[in-house]
Amino acid sequence: MAKTPNRILLSEDRIPTQWYNLRADMPTKPAPLIHPGTKEELPEEALYPIFCKELAHQELDNESRYVEIPEEVQEAYRTFRPSPLHRAYRLEKLLDTPARIYYKFEGNNTSGSHKLNSALAQAYYAKAEGLRGLTTETGAGQWGTALAMACAFFRLPLTVYMVKGSYNQKPYRRSIIQTFGAEIIASPSDTTNAGRAILAHDPETTGSLGCAISEAIEKAVSSEGYRYVLGSVLNQVLLHQSVIGLESKAQLESVDEYPDIIVGCAGGGSNLGGLIAPFMADKLTGRANPRMIAVEPASCPSFTRGTYKYDFCDTGKMTPLAKMYTLGSDFIPGANHAGGLRYHGMSPILSTLYHEGDLEAVAYEQTNVFEAAMQFARTEGILPAPESSHAIRGAVNEALKCKESGEAKCILFGLTGTGYFDMLAYEQYLNGTMTDTIPTDEELAKYINA
Amino acid sequence: MAKTPNRILLSEDRIPTQWYNLRADMPTKPAPLIHPGTKEELPEEALYPIFCKELAHQELDNESRYVEIPEEVQEAYRTFRPSPLHRAYRLEKLLDTPARIYYKFEGNNTSGSHKLNSALAQAYYAKAEGLRGLTTETGAGQWGTALAMACAFFRLPLTVYMVKGSYNQKPYRRSIIQTFGAEIIASPSDTTNAGRAILAHDPETTGSLGCAISEAIEKAVSSEGYRYVLGSVLNQVLLHQSVIGLESKAQLESVDEYPDIIVGCAGGGSNLGGLIAPFMADKLTGRANPRMIAVEPASCPSFTRGTYKYDFCDTGKMTPLAKMYTLGSDFIPGANHAGGLRYHGMSPILSTLYHEGDLEAVAYEQTNVFEAAMQFARTEGILPAPESSHAIRGAVNEALKCKESGEAKCILFGLTGTGYFDMLAYEQYLNGTMTDTIPTDEELAKYINA
Repeated sequence: MAKTPNRILLSEDRIPTQWYNLRADMPTKPAPLIHPGTKEELPEEALYPIFCKELAHQELDNESRYVEIPEEVQEAYRTFRPSPLHRAYRLEKLLDTPARIYYKFEGNNTSGSHKLNSALAQAYYAKAEGLRGLTTETGAGQWGTALAMACAFFRLPLTVYMVKGSYNQKPYRRSIIQTFGAEIIASPSDTTNAGRAILAHDPETTGSLGCAISEAIEKAVSSEGYRYVLGSVLNQVLLHQSVIGLESKAQLESVDEYPDIIVGCAGGGSNLGGLIAPFMADKLTGRANPRMIAVEPASCPSFTRGTYKYDFCDTGKMTPLAKMYTLGSDFIPGANHAGGLRYHGMSPILSTLYHEGDLEAVAYEQTNVFEAAMQFARTEGILPAPESSHAIRGAVNEALKCKESGEAKCILFGLTGTGYFDMLAYEQYLNGTMTDTIPTDEELAKYINA
Repeated sequence: MAKTPNRILLSEDRIPTQWYNLRADMPTKPAPLIHPGTKEELPEEALYPIFCKELAHQELDNESRYVEIPEEVQEAYRTFRPSPLHRAYRLEKLLDTPARIYYKFEGNNTSGSHKLNSALAQAYYAKAEGLRGLTTETGAGQWGTALAMACAFFRLPLTVYMVKGSYNQKPYRRSIIQTFGAEIIASPSDTTNAGRAILAHDPETTGSLGCAISEAIEKAVSSEGYRYVLGSVLNQVLLHQSVIGLESKAQLESVDEYPDIIVGCAGGGSNLGGLIAPFMADKLTGRANPRMIAVEPASCPSFTRGTYKYDFCDTGKMTPLAKMYTLGSDFIPGANHAGGLRYHGMSPILSTLYHEGDLEAVAYEQTNVFEAAMQFARTEGILPAPESSHAIRGAVNEALKCKESGEAKCILFGLTGTGYFDMLAYEQYLNGTMTDTIPTDEELAKYINA
């Protein structure tokens, strides 16, 4: 058999034409969204003030196994998809492991991450419905950049609330979002009631995803013809991100591989959910039995130290309640560089899978994660985002276990994005000033019971 | 016939296994390097104190049509090559032009530019010769990043002199170079005689490529087991960069295309020289007759306002003399964002072709260039480097001429890199503070006669 290439490429006619909806194959469906007051299950119409209609439908659709990708979205996908699947030959050699390591690299587009897959879908549906504009939040800035690009493609105005910590740490993230024509505001801000309330409580806060979500939602519902869009957590986002897993599976099949272990970083869960979707389907239907591992930061350990319960999706408590692993909607993690992994909750789909025992989770400290990032950059020649580096750490640890045991396992991990806007983090790692902030049990108890 | 895909991809077995040496097919060879004192032609051995032996050989080899790419370099190429050739459907539509526009995108590797093609070759040969380390200079930082990556791959120490203007403008360029393990010093510096002399003359200077080259050479020749490497201008670099043109030609052939016009930005000429190499061979041997256009910044117009004569390659006047279009080795361009296009001279190969009338050249102001960059980013979804944006401007202008004339020409341009480290430039363009610095005839006369 021919040697597996370094990059397994697919031609553009192999881009999926349908998203795959894992919920259709889940024996236990994610719990429905409920109204915070009445505790009643929300019908689709109840979501229309927040989401455009098609996305509200996708959010609640547990039945359709496949959803057609609109031609306009496919056209946009063709400018950067299929994304490459890399065989990590150089990393394997460095680790001296018998494992075969593959990574699906979603950073080879200007937004620098997988977020563009859902941004294009959401911007398209908003445009198709005749909306006047969108609002959103962004943590590390990957989602804001992706949505700004998508809105430039479909010519829609956009306002981005960016978590203040990232806003100050990453001035150039702001510039790139502005380059694509969007307005950007540091959150918490004085432009919303939610932002003003949080600032009154803690004027020095560096913000959080939950808080930025509150502001973006408030802005959307109070602006005529605007809707709110979110880059992770939601069922619709995991649906769109299934292109990652569908392509990965086809790419692995093309070299006669099937993963024994699949590793992804998890903030809200969109990348991991998309990556594992078709493999989880195999597992749930008994066709295969891969291990799937979520890696989260020790500073924001939703899976590994959170509680499975109904909670608000935002700090301002404006959203419906979702049943998920959560640290409490008031939880704001200590300073860290994985801005995309600072969310207090977790995708309801992934939460269900974790609760049912079909998904594993581990948490790592950021110095440990950056050690793997440096190793990866210097061998594979790709500068990983801090978020993505959690998956690298997870995959490297599994590969080292293979070295111990002598097992030649096939490991697939998601390399979600690049670290060009995270050089401050690398600088801190290099000069030894990087620290870890791990919440105590007492701190966690305070928020989960709030 | 099937519709041309958005991205024309080649499988990794299509990476060239030989570099193509255009000099073999040039009826008029580039003038030889000469000794500044004796004015005598330099033999290969005279270059050994500066370059490692194989590179000294390649520098002077006007005869070998093809040069084998070492297996270790091919292995490294396979981690990011072949690079994609894009069809600019969305840009064509925006311009409403009958032209078909293609661009070869060299920014899809972590160094963010085409520079990695030569960096890997140069680092490999240095390692193979048993050298202890390398020195180099970098302007915008693309070359420094690429060489740092290459030295990490081949485990060689590296010291980078970075033009001070860029060093201060781009702190994160420094960090990424350090991430790959290299030492980085702002030039002019007090670590060399050349740097100290320039600082004594003008303590406030923002530096220049020519000056950084002087420092890097001085450091190399005064350090045991060290050699100097350069990312552009040299014949050896154009040789390595021929992979760009070879792949582009194969990619266009795969969709039954041949370019009528080829456009590239030109600082020292490495990207342009590599891109046009196989097409120029067609032209010089009468097989085809494409137009080839170099685009340079109006602030540093080596081709369009320089003089074709023997000059030093560096400001410190330490190098041999090369016959080239030059603005004078003391020329330091006014502040601009195209750090990679601030060199006072031009590749001797390209200078010869321009002098013989086989290559055209135009110069654009940076505000004009950034207008095209913004247009490109928002339609094609790739954030171009300021350097690369000169080629975009040139290609867009040719496409607009096609719109006027109704001609459906095939235009190929080189998109050499990404602008992630140039957000300050975008910010200045967006807020209207970007200016242009165009030298007067008197200023140019002063330097060329120095």
